[in-house]
Formats: sequence, structure tokens, C-alpha cells
Amino acid sequence: MENASPVDVAWMRRAIELAARGIGSTHPNPVVGCVITSREGQPVGEGFHAVAGGPHAEVVALRMAGDQARGGTAYVTLEPCNHTGRTGPCADALIEAGIARVLYAVPDPNQQAAGGAEKLRSKNLAVEQGVLQQEAEEVNQVWLHSVRAGRPFVTWKFATTLDGRSAAPDRSSRWITGELARADVHRKRAECDAIAVGTQTVLDDDPELTVRDQLDRPAQRQPLRVVVGDREIPPTARVRNDRAETLLLPTHDPAEVLRQLDDRQIRHLWLEGGPTLAAAFLRARLVDQIVAYVAPAVLGSGFSAIGDLGAESIDHLRRFHLADVTRLGDDVRLTLTPLDRRTF
Amino acid sequence: MENASPVDVAWMRRAIELAARGIGSTHPNPVVGCVITSREGQPVGEGFHAVAGGPHAEVVALRMAGDQARGGTAYVTLEPCNHTGRTGPCADALIEAGIARVLYAVPDPNQQAAGGAEKLRSKNLAVEQGVLQQEAEEVNQVWLHSVRAGRPFVTWKFATTLDGRSAAPDRSSRWITGELARADVHRKRAECDAIAVGTQTVLDDDPELTVRDQLDRPAQRQPLRVVVGDREIPPTARVRNDRAETLLLPTHDPAEVLRQLDDRQIRHLWLEGGPTLAAAFLRARLVDQIVAYVAPAVLGSGFSAIGDLGAESIDHLRRFHLADVTRLGDDVRLTLTPLDRRTF
Repeated sequence: MENASPVDVAWMRRAIELAARGIGSTHPNPVVGCVITSREGQPVGEGFHAVAGGPHAEVVALRMAGDQARGGTAYVTLEPCNHTGRTGPCADALIEAGIARVLYAVPDPNQQAAGGAEKLRSKNLAVEQGVLQQEAEEVNQVWLHSVRAGRPFVTWKFATTLDGRSAAPDRSSRWITGELARADVHRKRAECDAIAVGTQTVLDDDPELTVRDQLDRPAQRQPLRVVVGDREIPPTARVRNDRAETLLLPTHDPAEVLRQLDDRQIRHLWLEGGPTLAAAFLRARLVDQIVAYVAPAVLGSGFSAIGDLGAESIDHLRRFHLADVTRLGDDVRLTLTPLDRRTF
Repeated sequence: MENASPVDVAWMRRAIELAARGIGSTHPNPVVGCVITSREGQPVGEGFHAVAGGPHAEVVALRMAGDQARGGTAYVTLEPCNHTGRTGPCADALIEAGIARVLYAVPDPNQQAAGGAEKLRSKNLAVEQGVLQQEAEEVNQVWLHSVRAGRPFVTWKFATTLDGRSAAPDRSSRWITGELARADVHRKRAECDAIAVGTQTVLDDDPELTVRDQLDRPAQRQPLRVVVGDREIPPTARVRNDRAETLLLPTHDPAEVLRQLDDRQIRHLWLEGGPTLAAAFLRARLVDQIVAYVAPAVLGSGFSAIGDLGAESIDHLRRFHLADVTRLGDDVRLTLTPLDRRTF
């Protein structure tokens, strides 16, 4: 958008802040934020999409604005939908409320829901697209990637010593990182809608793969647990308990895993390993983000977080962009993204 | 010191800042900073010890102050020496200049040079010790550690991928980290007075082990190059060139290496590996600091920066304190220190 005013930018930034509050709870929907200003330019309503099945951001903001929306402007982070799902089309709601002008940051890539802007224009609303598009894409990167690529966004998470060990020679691995890092893992698990491990990890570590708080209480909403591979999982394995749903996928093909999860509308897969499963996803170039927790410790022997990738010389090094470094107590969390800003 | 006034603390802080300017160039001497204030409390002189053989901090500051030092106060980061080496005792210089009061932060642990405070008191100067002692110890930690422990302070440096690989299966390793990290290594090498590697590293990588700038020009002052182990080094090895002095130590015993270097008054050894030498120092608990450069990259196979430490289970993890995390371009530098604040 060429002629965005400072006022337009400011309200769109607020809409993006609102959108971010929905991260982790809107699956399989996008996060969306909305600000309504009156004809005179005063803020009269705001809202965000909080949970799938709940009201969309525009509807929340319009409700707050009431009659003051008439002749006003709506700032929305994503193109208003033109689709009747569990709620009616937002485009209709904006028209009925008498909104005169709609600014949205990102066009809706979802075939089913798109067409909102066109409908608004057909009813003579002024419609502009592109204010703060990059920031708005970032807040929705998981959902946008998932819709555009037609498969879940994949985050590979691992914890490691400084010398790259994720388990000792006897396969013991608890706890390499400290409390703050482990709490962070639970917060990040909670933002995903599926957590996957290989059968070997289930057999070695018997993880529960649930989201828990610092008092070890399970969260209300639990991601789908996914166990990949065709080895037998004992009926007593904790991943089989009733604290969350569990899907067994007897395959070794990462693409097949993602197809099955896409069928279930999974948008964000949190891949916890082990090394064989992680290597399979990396080799297939199906990892979109790496979150590594590095402990200030050395082991000198044991197992790596990642299996063989076929590298023979240093020229085969797989290099990523360092998106973020965060200290968590005595541990460090590194977040890596693809160098080409697409898939690794 | 119990009754340090805010003014005393401020001038001592300035003296510590001055001391820090000597880091890397005073070997085998400590870094020292000094501020002189007049009888009326005005700053009239300051100085630091810049290079072994050059004037001590007190002498530089007294020269600047001239007659204004009479009846004044001297703030010194380390107890003034009472020893005639390449320069005369600083205690005498302070007495002759007519200084009335001397504050110093850290007592001199060096038997040969100590006794300065006693001499000052015997001449009726007011002498106080302890202002900002901890900060003053930090700026001199390498020298203090070296004098107190009777051996060089040892920093183990390595570069690694996120999965702990320092070389590919074919032993190739250039370059895992980026330009900023490599320039940082040269800056940190320059602060040391010896750089050690094992014979295997010489045979694999043929490093020159010199301090160079970003245009690859060698620095004027070069640390001693040390090659540890009894394998034959070819006469054409770059470590044998004339850009710096080289010491071959045909031993595998880290304690013996440090004894030989202590005889040469080496205060700070920069240990660059490889894995066998690093493991020998870690097993002997003779590593005082770890500086790890972590690249946002994975290799999946190859050699670790650290050899076997005998760990069998995760209980054998060697854990350190994370003293610092610094981003250098797309790489991350982690600085670790012993958990017990002494030797690992």
C-alpha cells in the first residue's frame, strides 16, 4: 500500500498486537486482530480471534463499537472472510455495521474463505491492502505457511549439551537443560497442535508428550500426540494415557506423516525427535524452524540429537539463519529459520 | 573497606576502567589503573600499566599530577609494589610525591612484589584497602588466578555446529563459523600470551596460530605458539614459520604443559584443541574458562570438539555457569566458567 498514513500504520500495529494474543489457541484458524475507528477517527472497538468456533476478530470489534462503527474504518490483519463456517462471513458484518473503509494487511490465501475484499468493494466500501503486511505475516506465519504449502508448519525442537549430545551412552537424558528451559518447552508445545516423536524415543524415554505447567498440572487444551514408526509401543507407555489424543503412524516417510496430519487440519507440528526422525525430516527438507536448547555442559560421549544426514565434508554443512537467541537461566535457546526464508 | 565514600568509589571505578585498557599487553604483569586527586579532591593525574617493562600506573599518574599530588590521594586497583624490577617500587614513588592517602582495591598476592602497603604505612601515609575489590579482581582475573594457582589461566576455545561437530567425517572444518566470530577469535587470542594445540590439529588443519587482523595482517605482538604431543610435525608446517615463537612440548600431561609454561611466565593459555588435548585438560580439571562459538548449522556426522571424558550416564554431565552469551553475526559465542567459581 503506497499511501498509508502514520495513523493507519499505528492502528494496524495495534491490530497485529491483538492478533498475537490468539497464538496457540485458534487452530486450525489463523490469528486475526481488528481495530474499529469512528467516522471522526476515534478508536471505538477492538478484538481478536481467540479460539476456533468463537467469534472472528471483526465481529468482536464491531460489537464493542456498536453504532459508532457507522461511517468508520476497520483495520484488520487478514482479509475479512467471505465464508460461512461456524460463524457468518465477516465481510457481511462489516457492511451491515455501516463501515466506510477497510484496511487489511494480508490477503487470505485460503480459497474457501477468500473473496471478502471483492464483496466489500462491490458494496462501495473503500478497501486497501498491504499496511504492515510483513509484520502481519510474521504473527500468522505458521497458519499462512500451512495454507500456502498445503501441509503443517514443522518445528524441530531438541535439547543438547554444548558438544551436541542429547543423551548419554546409556541413553539417559534427563535433565540436560534447566527448569526455565523445560517450562519454555511446555509453553511452546502449547502453541502447536501436534507433537511428534519416533518410536525409539517412546521406548527410551517414555515421554507423556503433554503440555503441563510448572506444578506438573496438565493444560486444558492438549496437542495431538503423534508416534511415528512401526515398532511396537507397549500398552503401558505414558503416551497412551488418556491425558490427550494419540495417533500412531506406522511409517518412516515424513511427507506421509504431514499428509496424514494435514487431513486432520494440523497447522503446526512440534517435532521432538529422536535423531532418526529428525534426520528424516531434515533430509526431506520438511523442517521450517529449529528450536534448540543448549545447556552449558559437556558430556564427551553419547548420542547426538540428529542422525546421519549424509555429510562427508564441511561443504555439506546445513546452515540456517539465526532468528533469535534467548537466555533461559543458564541455558540458551536458539531459534533458526531457513536461509532462503522458506523451507530448509 | 567499611567507610568508602561515594567519591572514593567513583575514583576507584575510574581506576578500574583505566586498568582494563592494559588487558592483553601487560603479560606477565597484572593490569593496573591509578587516579590521583589533589588535596582539594580534584583529579590531577591518571594512568595505567600499558606494557611489561613500561612505567607502572602509579608512576604515569604521578607524572601527570606533578606538584599537585602533594597532600593528595592515590586510587590504585592493586596494592602498590615494593619491588625493584625493570622499574623502581611504586610505594617509594608515592611517598616521594608527597601523597597523603592511598586507597587500593586488591592486595598483591605476588610474594616478590608485596609489602607496598606496609611500607606506605611506615611512612605515615593513610592506607585503606578493599574499595570495589570484586570489580578490580575481575579486571585482573587472569593474572590473579595465575599468581594464586601458580600456573597459567586456561581458556578452552572451540567452534562447533549446533549438533556438536567441529569437523566433518573427512576432517575438514573450514569454516564452521562466520567472519565476525573468526575476527573475535583473533581479538581474544591477542589477549593471551600462549596458544596451544595438539599435534593432530597441526597435522589436520595446518593452522598458523598467529593473531591477524581482518585483512590477514599479523599483529605486532604474537602469543607463544605451543604444540602438545609427541607426533612429528613436518618442517613445512605453518606453525613453524617465523611469524611467532613456537614451543614443542612432547608430552600428553596437561599439568606438565602448564608447569613448562609457568616457567616462561605465561599467564593466559588459549587452548584451541583438538578434542584429545581438550579432553585431557578437562579430565585434569585444568580448564578455567570455556569460549564456544556455536554456528546455526547441523552436520549430522563428523568429529566432536571434545574427546571422551569417561561419561556413561547423564549423571556424569559436566555442567558450567553461563557467564555470557553474545551474538556475532549469525553465530553465538558462549562463555562458561566453573560452577564453583574456581577451576572446573
